Amino acid sequence: MIPFKIVCSNCGKETDSRQWRWRHECGGPLDIVLELKGKKFTELIDVNEQNIRRYAQLLPIQKLPSVHHGWTPIVKQNIDGVEVNFKLEYLSLGGSFKDRGAYISVAKAKELGLKGIIVDSSGNAGIGFSLMGLLSGIDVYVFISKYAPVGKKKLLRLLEANVWEVDGDRMDANREAIKAETEGLAYVTQWWNPYFIEGVKTMAYEAYEQIGSVDYVIAPIGSGTILLGLYKGYQELVQLQALNKVPRIIGVQACGYSAICEELGARKRGITKSELADGITEIDPPRRRQIVEAIRRTNGHCIIVDDEEIKESLVKLRKLGFIVEPTSAVPYVALMIAFKQGFFKPGDKVLLPLTGSGLKLIDELIEITDSKR
Amino acid sequence: MIPFKIVCSNCGKETDSRQWRWRHECGGPLDIVLELKGKKFTELIDVNEQNIRRYAQLLPIQKLPSVHHGWTPIVKQNIDGVEVNFKLEYLSLGGSFKDRGAYISVAKAKELGLKGIIVDSSGNAGIGFSLMGLLSGIDVYVFISKYAPVGKKKLLRLLEANVWEVDGDRMDANREAIKAETEGLAYVTQWWNPYFIEGVKTMAYEAYEQIGSVDYVIAPIGSGTILLGLYKGYQELVQLQALNKVPRIIGVQACGYSAICEELGARKRGITKSELADGITEIDPPRRRQIVEAIRRTNGHCIIVDDEEIKESLVKLRKLGFIVEPTSAVPYVALMIAFKQGFFKPGDKVLLPLTGSGLKLIDELIEITDSKR
Repeated sequence: MIPFKIVCSNCGKETDSRQWRWRHECGGPLDIVLELKGKKFTELIDVNEQNIRRYAQLLPIQKLPSVHHGWTPIVKQNIDGVEVNFKLEYLSLGGSFKDRGAYISVAKAKELGLKGIIVDSSGNAGIGFSLMGLLSGIDVYVFISKYAPVGKKKLLRLLEANVWEVDGDRMDANREAIKAETEGLAYVTQWWNPYFIEGVKTMAYEAYEQIGSVDYVIAPIGSGTILLGLYKGYQELVQLQALNKVPRIIGVQACGYSAICEELGARKRGITKSELADGITEIDPPRRRQIVEAIRRTNGHCIIVDDEEIKESLVKLRKLGFIVEPTSAVPYVALMIAFKQGFFKPGDKVLLPLTGSGLKLIDELIEITDSKR
Repeated sequence: MIPFKIVCSNCGKETDSRQWRWRHECGGPLDIVLELKGKKFTELIDVNEQNIRRYAQLLPIQKLPSVHHGWTPIVKQNIDGVEVNFKLEYLSLGGSFKDRGAYISVAKAKELGLKGIIVDSSGNAGIGFSLMGLLSGIDVYVFISKYAPVGKKKLLRLLEANVWEVDGDRMDANREAIKAETEGLAYVTQWWNPYFIEGVKTMAYEAYEQIGSVDYVIAPIGSGTILLGLYKGYQELVQLQALNKVPRIIGVQACGYSAICEELGARKRGITKSELADGITEIDPPRRRQIVEAIRRTNGHCIIVDDEEIKESLVKLRKLGFIVEPTSAVPYVALMIAFKQGFFKPGDKVLLPLTGSGLKLIDELIEITDSKR
């Protein structure tokens, strides 16, 4: 394990890494900074492992659990001369990319001797945390909106989580979860928790090993962990002399939840709130400033999508063999819009993560896409 | 592609490989035989691919579709000094190992210019075929018992299959499917179809590349494709000078569907028919003689499991991080029984495929395992 420190992204002050802290006393989100100077990526990976433990030296954890995570497949598609690389993040133990962040966070909670974790979730993060908690012997308390998809809530119960349904939206669930925090119980929600991003960054490492450099990354923006995780992973690959530059990041938001895209100059699209993109309904995520910076600094772009487009893309993705949930269709819609806007040139390489499994939500998918012709 | 012939396992006669045939005119099941003499495994694999196309030369298909299949992860667990290797076959596009056989079979149907396929299924095979049909532009007709799990039937509809619910059991669905066969529509059910086994054999190739040789393989027996696929894969690895010998095969059947185990000397366990092992309820599979031979020739063993044991194992597997369907718990039960019978010695290596995802069946899993403590 490489030495690291935990730094406030707001005031720049360092904080104690031997205690569980999810935000700095000044109110800013915390970042984990590894001492990478002079180090090389190829010298730090364990080539005998083909899972997240391959990158153990680059993760701020003493001992990683031995269950499998990561090393998700990539499917290449040539679309109008552009190489689109779908990374099948949904083929994961808990069925979404969130498993990566949950894996690292629960390992850390365990390392610090905590007896349980508290999380608020739209579903997938709760599932990832519950699964990791179950196999690590840690209690998991999940706060979820009673309006969250039924399939996801059932799965939480199956995974023996203590589920609290909150009569309100995602923001209400968040408030209740923070209130419930107490001694010995870590508040781990991905909106704040810096270890979560450490887990997600391994997606960039893997993609680099699987397909080399890419020109663009398309990432949905909810709380921003997938975007920031990929950004951090690619930044570290540059620091570790594996890549020359970080790819341009295309962030995607859904109608009604598009403040970040609007801040970056995208025109607002209608006033209807998306009902399908249930995984990315955060109004004002704590790491908003970091998300905006990541897109700006990579000379990126931001795209807003609507439910009609999500519905169409779900059907298209299914015809490509990908049974994913509605939120997972969001970056595919953005890809299509970026094509129409003439964003890509022939020969460009794009990384597009497919984030969550549709198997959890078969009823919902049937209802949405009315698949019988 | 290595030259191959199609031979009847009953009368030994060769048949024309340029036409779709699912059984020989004498009534015997057909086998595909590759000309492997003097060839080496390491010289035949395409190391640039990390999916089933890695083994394109060893598969009897001209052109393989570019969607991802195979290269499922392995999780190692040390149990009482024995190295148990769980192969997570359920982390697959359609959520089960059946995707492998469907991938190869649909590719062949396409190559032969057929416009559609007919299959009878307990669920997973139908899902694999429907998914492959959908992305290959081939019509899929699935005959399924109306008593098959609801989650699986819904998924078939989502995948745009033409579903025929048969008022009867699996055997009735099978009879109806065979009756429906007509010009241009291939009958592809895995009970007979030799190409299906070609797909499944790649599981052995992968396991060999991932963990080297193993001493035991534990395989559930329904129609026997997973057992015969693994057997064929390991036999070919021996012919291709990669291994010295085929591992011992432990076949597993469920109460009430245990004729093969009884033939091999296992004592019948009660008279109750298993309700949980819905994926392996074949009474008298066409390849029964081949299954018995595979177990005998490898000095193997056969174990019968009951529903109470399946239920317990489902909970145990979940605590290891594996959300699988009830039928997938069957080989884990057998592992535990084999331990009790003193079957293994310290240092032995065991391969145990986890065959199907539990995400399709969350309602059923909750009902069965009553997970809330």
